Amino acid sequence: MRLSTVVHAAGTSAAVLDGTTWRALPAADLSALLAAVPLQRVAGLAGDALADAVPVLPLPAPGKVICCGLNYADHIRETGRELPTYPTLFPKYADTLTGPEADLVLPAGLQVDWEAELAVVVGTPLRRADRVTALAGIAGYTVANDISVRDWQYRTLEWFQGKAWDATTPLGPVVVTPDELDPAAGLQVMCRVNGEQTQHDTTKTLVFDAADLLAYISTFTVLRPGDLVLTGTPGGVGVAREPKRFLADGDVVETEISGIGTLRNTVRFTG
Amino acid sequence: MRLSTVVHAAGTSAAVLDGTTWRALPAADLSALLAAVPLQRVAGLAGDALADAVPVLPLPAPGKVICCGLNYADHIRETGRELPTYPTLFPKYADTLTGPEADLVLPAGLQVDWEAELAVVVGTPLRRADRVTALAGIAGYTVANDISVRDWQYRTLEWFQGKAWDATTPLGPVVVTPDELDPAAGLQVMCRVNGEQTQHDTTKTLVFDAADLLAYISTFTVLRPGDLVLTGTPGGVGVAREPKRFLADGDVVETEISGIGTLRNTVRFTG
Repeated sequence: MRLSTVVHAAGTSAAVLDGTTWRALPAADLSALLAAVPLQRVAGLAGDALADAVPVLPLPAPGKVICCGLNYADHIRETGRELPTYPTLFPKYADTLTGPEADLVLPAGLQVDWEAELAVVVGTPLRRADRVTALAGIAGYTVANDISVRDWQYRTLEWFQGKAWDATTPLGPVVVTPDELDPAAGLQVMCRVNGEQTQHDTTKTLVFDAADLLAYISTFTVLRPGDLVLTGTPGGVGVAREPKRFLADGDVVETEISGIGTLRNTVRFTG
Repeated sequence: MRLSTVVHAAGTSAAVLDGTTWRALPAADLSALLAAVPLQRVAGLAGDALADAVPVLPLPAPGKVICCGLNYADHIRETGRELPTYPTLFPKYADTLTGPEADLVLPAGLQVDWEAELAVVVGTPLRRADRVTALAGIAGYTVANDISVRDWQYRTLEWFQGKAWDATTPLGPVVVTPDELDPAAGLQVMCRVNGEQTQHDTTKTLVFDAADLLAYISTFTVLRPGDLVLTGTPGGVGVAREPKRFLADGDVVETEISGIGTLRNTVRFTG
């Protein structure tokens, strides 16, 4: 299945894609649906076709959005580090997320960088789960760009303040269920800025895969349906270039993962 | 006013202390009350006296719990660092919090440490607020202990995974409104382990005060009524001792701030 939240002629709804038609699911959005209905029951709930449906932020209300840094072997090497024993984790908020075509509005003068990432959507409550349980608890996969304000990220030891600017992490456009997509088989993760490819790697090279991350996180905190785990970004970010490159007002960032879809977001700096 | 969430003979309720009597406020808990009612209106809403009322976790559902590290001059010096230009920030979750008398249940074998802290409760939405607006937006102050799993905290560069273990940060027992308490005048922040004082400092020595922190955080993310900001811990934590000292099964941690109250929590290690 390909699931999302869509805006349509009569409102907003959770929805499932049926060919090229979005069909209504019985919830206001996909966060509410996953909180209310086991994933196995979703297929049987598809209702009316929705006119003029356009996918928006699929998961507007995750309780937890947890990101893994330094998880692609080549990105780790470009930052000058060794392959890690443990995942480096930091959080964002539901407030940090924005839609697949939304503008990225930020104050002028910040060092804004791109980070294309595979995002994992939790489908069942996970608490001290092993890898097998964690894998079975995945609702699906979507695309994210962990847009980072590098000057704030590196103001202190903790990255959080550069990673949690409201409405700057685009997500979507759809959540693809695991029966249709296997990151272990290798999904192409790509970022383009104004059409120029800046990142391209495969999820085959992830140091910690989706099940590893969910199991590890669930050791210290419960994960619930609709929560998100971002799996880290491959090499090619702007801050690691020589000279460093950051996003400018009007830049168009495209984030694509094969088998899922593409985010297309324009940077808008305010005065 | 002294506000909290209490368990009483007939259920759970937000409540305000009237002498030694807890009076009902019209919400299931203080998080729900602050989300629904401006603070200025709360005093007029005090209802019936509640029989057998005992304060529990006052704020069970903050959307954001943001902590400042390295904020007391002497604690910064004991970690060997310079006074900071910017606050070091990291988050916890509502899930991380627990009640003022709750046991701290953790798997055996972890390096568990204490961090007594003044916590600030947000009273109004704050977005890119200046210091004056931030100060006026404070609902009150309470006591927290930012219990930290040091071995996980230092597994990677990011402290988050050592700071967000479910139900390990006690909070309460009451929220005291700013008309009755001024941290700038100097509140005594104390931690005792099995009766032995391990931390004692005054909020006069905070590098970044409550208004500084709320204004700074509101630059990148909105704060809402009921959100929490923990202001950092003074010197005397176990990991900075020589030899290092961590909490053992059965240890009783008391966290006290003058003018607010005392948390009393027992460490319980599981197999």
